[in-house]
Amino acid sequence: MAPIVLEKLSSNKHHEGTLTKYKFRSVVLGGLDAQFNLFLPANAAQAKVPVLVYLAGLTCTEDNGAQKGGFMRDAAAEGIAILFPDTSPRGAGIEGEDVDWDFGSGAGFYLNATNPKWSKHYNMLSYVTQELPQVIEAAGIPIDFSRQSIFGHSMGGHGALTTYLSSLLAGTKQYRSCSAFSPICEPSAVPWGTKAFTGYLAGGVEEGKDRYDASVLVGRVKGAINVLVDYGTADNFLHQLHPEAFLRAARDAGHDEVQVRVRSQDGYDHSYYFISTFATDHIHFHANFLKA
Amino acid sequence: MAPIVLEKLSSNKHHEGTLTKYKFRSVVLGGLDAQFNLFLPANAAQAKVPVLVYLAGLTCTEDNGAQKGGFMRDAAAEGIAILFPDTSPRGAGIEGEDVDWDFGSGAGFYLNATNPKWSKHYNMLSYVTQELPQVIEAAGIPIDFSRQSIFGHSMGGHGALTTYLSSLLAGTKQYRSCSAFSPICEPSAVPWGTKAFTGYLAGGVEEGKDRYDASVLVGRVKGAINVLVDYGTADNFLHQLHPEAFLRAARDAGHDEVQVRVRSQDGYDHSYYFISTFATDHIHFHANFLKA
Repeated sequence: MAPIVLEKLSSNKHHEGTLTKYKFRSVVLGGLDAQFNLFLPANAAQAKVPVLVYLAGLTCTEDNGAQKGGFMRDAAAEGIAILFPDTSPRGAGIEGEDVDWDFGSGAGFYLNATNPKWSKHYNMLSYVTQELPQVIEAAGIPIDFSRQSIFGHSMGGHGALTTYLSSLLAGTKQYRSCSAFSPICEPSAVPWGTKAFTGYLAGGVEEGKDRYDASVLVGRVKGAINVLVDYGTADNFLHQLHPEAFLRAARDAGHDEVQVRVRSQDGYDHSYYFISTFATDHIHFHANFLKA
Repeated sequence: MAPIVLEKLSSNKHHEGTLTKYKFRSVVLGGLDAQFNLFLPANAAQAKVPVLVYLAGLTCTEDNGAQKGGFMRDAAAEGIAILFPDTSPRGAGIEGEDVDWDFGSGAGFYLNATNPKWSKHYNMLSYVTQELPQVIEAAGIPIDFSRQSIFGHSMGGHGALTTYLSSLLAGTKQYRSCSAFSPICEPSAVPWGTKAFTGYLAGGVEEGKDRYDASVLVGRVKGAINVLVDYGTADNFLHQLHPEAFLRAARDAGHDEVQVRVRSQDGYDHSYYFISTFATDHIHFHANFLKA
């Protein structure tokens, strides 16, 4: 197999570090070109740095979090890299892929599809957790993937929570901490999630509930867990999110508010204006674990 | 004349304050609908707050600075409002208005057109300096326009500098301070500027050089002046900006580095990644004057 070539599409100096956009041909996504952004703080010139993975929400690309999240000021100060993957494969050419804004392109849901129609390309779970770290390490980029945490927004909050909880349940300890802004917390019970599970998974909503529902997974976790969730009380999509279901499941499983903290933020909505307001809190939350 | 009605298009809580998008029918822009964003910090609920006007660059709208500038965190902490106007009239229906990205729509250059083809609508100078403050005051929004400063990026940096310098020369003291990211400092000597002046002004480049060239205007200013300029050494548009011409003109006129500070930032480019890196510096620079 030919070695994977990382192509640099652009590079911008930012908070004394560098934000670089890369492209490569992804094996996991079925041979499609995939793009991501990577922020490296200035101290990466001296030694490998820890990394925080940001998963964006429906309709987004690798750019939204980088441009609007407000994460890099604190990440630069803390000496933490941030990795911004795209939200789905692009250009798979599957019938219906570009019809809906909440399914297909821009809506990969951070799972591995088992429905044969989608399973060649729609494997964002393996892409984020395995292929991206491998490709970045192989390219010699100075990131220490043994110090990794993950966060995200909305569909990406769902992705961050389920990826993190799955890694805890599998015992891999791939991520040290997880946080989310307005995450889809109980996808098997809401329209966005059931649509995704029904489409991508051969086992439909039942398979999704068992493997990709944060409110189910959190109930199975024993031992140490580090989760921070923020959502806004003026979020128009609260009926898609169900943060109270996640909180209840966490408490029922015995996780206290130090281990799983779910904060309701008065008057905030679903936008990046909300995210960037609490960006500092989330970066420092992760820095506690990444720099421990 | 019917009173002007400010229509609220959207509102997002942000850093404990509120970012609101408004629309109204602008008299100065020849009866066209105009949109702007306004950030009000939380303390505006108690008393009128000072305001910083942000002028965006070519192709931008009222959204770019609000979404990508990274200004509101520090503005909220300092208790300063930020006003984000659009960069040109929209939908004037003038032949050629939408042909080029650097002239017409999205490229109003913050001047008052004197070429009859454009002069009914392209009056962004009066729009920013007169109509917007009047409309906002008339609507009862708690801003104290006697404490006003102005900043901008690229074409908007040109707008901020020329608007500020003109107000000093006219003795109105409308703005307490001015700053700019990668401004077009000598428009009468570069392609973007000469194209705009030739098109919008009956007197062409000569009229532009006399009325709207920061490097000319700064040479006429006597007395107190408060200007901060940042530009990046990796800016692909440096040949359109000429910061060294502005700096030379300022020093020739006797303005020292406390009065007119021009900083070259190593390795930074023309993007919002550059702007947001130095956003904190600019907000605090203006806060010194707005809260004096």
